[in-house]
Amino acid sequence: MTSNNRVAPHLFVVLGATGDLMRRKLLPALFHLAAQGLLKGAALILGAARKTDLDDAGFRAQAREALAADGFSADDLVGRWCDECLFYQPIGLGEAEDYQALAARIAKLEQAHHLPGNRVFYLALPPAAFPSTIVGLGEAGLHRSPGWSRLVIEKPFGRDLTSAQDLNRLLHRYFDESQIYRIDHYLGKETVQNLLVFRFANALFESVWNRDRVKHIRIMVAEELGVEGRAGYYDQTGAIRDMVQNHLMQLLTLAAMEVPEAFDGEAIRREKIKVLRQIEPLDREHVVFGQYIGGRIDGQEVPGYRDEPGVAPGSTTETFVALRLEVTNWRWQGVPFYLCAGKRLPRRLTQIVVAFRCPPVSVFRPFFRCEIDSNVVVITLQPDEGFDLCFEVKAPGQPFSLQTHRLHFRYSEAFGRLPDAYETLLLDIITGDQTLFVHADEVEAAWRLYTPLLEHRLPAYPYAAGTWGPPAAEHLLGDMRGSWGAVA
Amino acid sequence: MTSNNRVAPHLFVVLGATGDLMRRKLLPALFHLAAQGLLKGAALILGAARKTDLDDAGFRAQAREALAADGFSADDLVGRWCDECLFYQPIGLGEAEDYQALAARIAKLEQAHHLPGNRVFYLALPPAAFPSTIVGLGEAGLHRSPGWSRLVIEKPFGRDLTSAQDLNRLLHRYFDESQIYRIDHYLGKETVQNLLVFRFANALFESVWNRDRVKHIRIMVAEELGVEGRAGYYDQTGAIRDMVQNHLMQLLTLAAMEVPEAFDGEAIRREKIKVLRQIEPLDREHVVFGQYIGGRIDGQEVPGYRDEPGVAPGSTTETFVALRLEVTNWRWQGVPFYLCAGKRLPRRLTQIVVAFRCPPVSVFRPFFRCEIDSNVVVITLQPDEGFDLCFEVKAPGQPFSLQTHRLHFRYSEAFGRLPDAYETLLLDIITGDQTLFVHADEVEAAWRLYTPLLEHRLPAYPYAAGTWGPPAAEHLLGDMRGSWGAVA
Repeated sequence: MTSNNRVAPHLFVVLGATGDLMRRKLLPALFHLAAQGLLKGAALILGAARKTDLDDAGFRAQAREALAADGFSADDLVGRWCDECLFYQPIGLGEAEDYQALAARIAKLEQAHHLPGNRVFYLALPPAAFPSTIVGLGEAGLHRSPGWSRLVIEKPFGRDLTSAQDLNRLLHRYFDESQIYRIDHYLGKETVQNLLVFRFANALFESVWNRDRVKHIRIMVAEELGVEGRAGYYDQTGAIRDMVQNHLMQLLTLAAMEVPEAFDGEAIRREKIKVLRQIEPLDREHVVFGQYIGGRIDGQEVPGYRDEPGVAPGSTTETFVALRLEVTNWRWQGVPFYLCAGKRLPRRLTQIVVAFRCPPVSVFRPFFRCEIDSNVVVITLQPDEGFDLCFEVKAPGQPFSLQTHRLHFRYSEAFGRLPDAYETLLLDIITGDQTLFVHADEVEAAWRLYTPLLEHRLPAYPYAAGTWGPPAAEHLLGDMRGSWGAVA
Repeated sequence: MTSNNRVAPHLFVVLGATGDLMRRKLLPALFHLAAQGLLKGAALILGAARKTDLDDAGFRAQAREALAADGFSADDLVGRWCDECLFYQPIGLGEAEDYQALAARIAKLEQAHHLPGNRVFYLALPPAAFPSTIVGLGEAGLHRSPGWSRLVIEKPFGRDLTSAQDLNRLLHRYFDESQIYRIDHYLGKETVQNLLVFRFANALFESVWNRDRVKHIRIMVAEELGVEGRAGYYDQTGAIRDMVQNHLMQLLTLAAMEVPEAFDGEAIRREKIKVLRQIEPLDREHVVFGQYIGGRIDGQEVPGYRDEPGVAPGSTTETFVALRLEVTNWRWQGVPFYLCAGKRLPRRLTQIVVAFRCPPVSVFRPFFRCEIDSNVVVITLQPDEGFDLCFEVKAPGQPFSLQTHRLHFRYSEAFGRLPDAYETLLLDIITGDQTLFVHADEVEAAWRLYTPLLEHRLPAYPYAAGTWGPPAAEHLLGDMRGSWGAVA
């Protein structure tokens, strides 16, 4: 994000290269970066996967198909890129000799293409495959090279504090933290990155971004979707693990962090870690779990969670969480942070809302009573990235009255197409910028906060699909008059 | 502005009722207020003027014509309103008996229409006629009535401190300050009124509205027009008297004033007077006068000021003023206020720009160097009333770079048609709300500031029509890189 570093020639190794993530996200992003000339023509991609009956040609054919399905026209450029840059190496059952073969293939490719030994290892794999793959790479000596070696993993980073610590310990057995890129794809979104610019390049906002002026901050990730064929995974996971511990906490740290000493990965991550450590242990009274029952969304009947195929009968997994927490530091003491995430809510919406305090005295009484959301900054990540600033204006003419209006900024209106989050993140990995990646300490601090909730679970209150969660959540979020999403 | 008071039955007396102001502004505003039902059908209008060969019928015919010219369709409503509500009384040469005749006519009308003696006297007259008219009304006892009596005068309120004090003394011989409504039509604009709402109903803005956060405030009234047939008047007047002493100072007081103790005329005017008294005497080094020479505007050649018919040969009247002043109080000490007004500038533009300080440290170096106007609130009064908030955003993608963008609010987009300033002001006069009218003390404090500049005049530097003033002004306004109007 921060660097305009030169891209060095390198080999981008994807483990799990025949999977969904490669096809839908990594291939299109890598091709798009190459097509824009950002990779300087010096990037080869080596796919690795279990499939033993696949070779370079077959892999390239799959890639061409995937890119065509993603809307890239099957023109010369796509074909030439696939033929020149893509290679495949089977990894079989992942035995030691398979990784040695991988290492040999890497050495051979680097030699043939005069690459200096810069390598990315992207684990596009289910979490169960992380440990054996990390060990396999490390034991084959692939954690070191004549150039740089970087390891990329996708969430989940553990299922709780203990498993997260185990994973980090294993990673650190072979790799330095500076080599490890933990992806939270929310951080690749322009608005998330821009949150730091918004705060630290605009003294106007930063000067009110504190307990003296802010009434509360709320962070919402609402999904319209249910479990959509991922019921088996989701039923073992729930909203805390799927959304809150990672995405919402990342948004919270960026909204709450202090000014970093410099605009680089290390300084920013240090400030984020501080925020996570300054959060008070959660008060169970201030947490509400919910689970959706049947209801209507967009006029369509949708089934309840327990009726989804693949969900255990009588499952108590939470599909909704609302909670209130406090960041006890000089900037935020006493300012509540409200977090809310849920499936089958009325619409898809990801927002950070910073609500400012009312004027200490209303000189406009009786024409105006300050209300929540009359002065808010709304940062929208989905469905349409941008900022809104709500403020009071006088309605023209008589009688005297005030209305809440908004100043409005949308990225797409200002800039047209935004890069996909993966393009941003992959380029950062290649240029060695860790700003938008999650540090081991962040992962552990967030799990430390949420693990007690997972060990002693709260009951999940039912809520009808297509509503903003159970009544108990409205009670908790009373300040907002129960209306998440009213500011949209 | 602040009151939702009931409108009491009243008689609206216009002195100078055959003049331009009546035809272009007062009649349309009064009709429009009546047509909206805001006058509750209890308002009669008595025109008075020198013309002795005019009667009610003739006056009504003139009014119908004027309203038709103003775009009101000559329908039943217009005709009925003129016939039922308009009356005319000749005032001849304005001798004592003329005012007694006026008083008698007023009494007769009030009796015939069961009016309780509430009266507005609107002096739609040239300033030379003010003293004799005030005396005439007062000596005929028209400063008192069984109901309320209000006197309305238009600027100029004197030509310097002494003449302003003389005028106020004469006014106060008959009328209390609470009866006197000094019109500055800028104050009737929605944006000007809304400036108070913007500041005092939005804690977000008010909390940064001070010396800690504001770098400077600039107020600009740019006209594209030249003297346009008013050369004789203008050559005796100049930009200080025509614009700066009144309109710009009013905008300044509203931008700078403290929170009033209540939202009423008396409290607000008290705070405005405080600001005027806290302005340091002007430093002549910080004032630049200019006078336009020939140039091009919108691709059209336009003549220089001295070549305009009616301007004295060798005139030194200023058609442009730029100055810097300081409000020495706890809120504003050290914050420069830049005022600028001029004729034949590149375009018509009235704006208040509040520029905020840069972040104390730029964490985005070298990608971003804080510049003037990267964080500003822009309040536009003309040509299109509204607010803009400029702020820095990250440009999407690579390389990392920042851009200044704006959040945008326009009254017309939010509300459609805005009431004309005169509608607002006339209704306030009728309901007895002095908030938007200028107090005697404000007039005198502003003259106290500017009279020294008029007594010992500065040279007026030439500037080409269609430019933003003379180079000396760019030097004074160096902070803004000489580009008034760049934020538009």
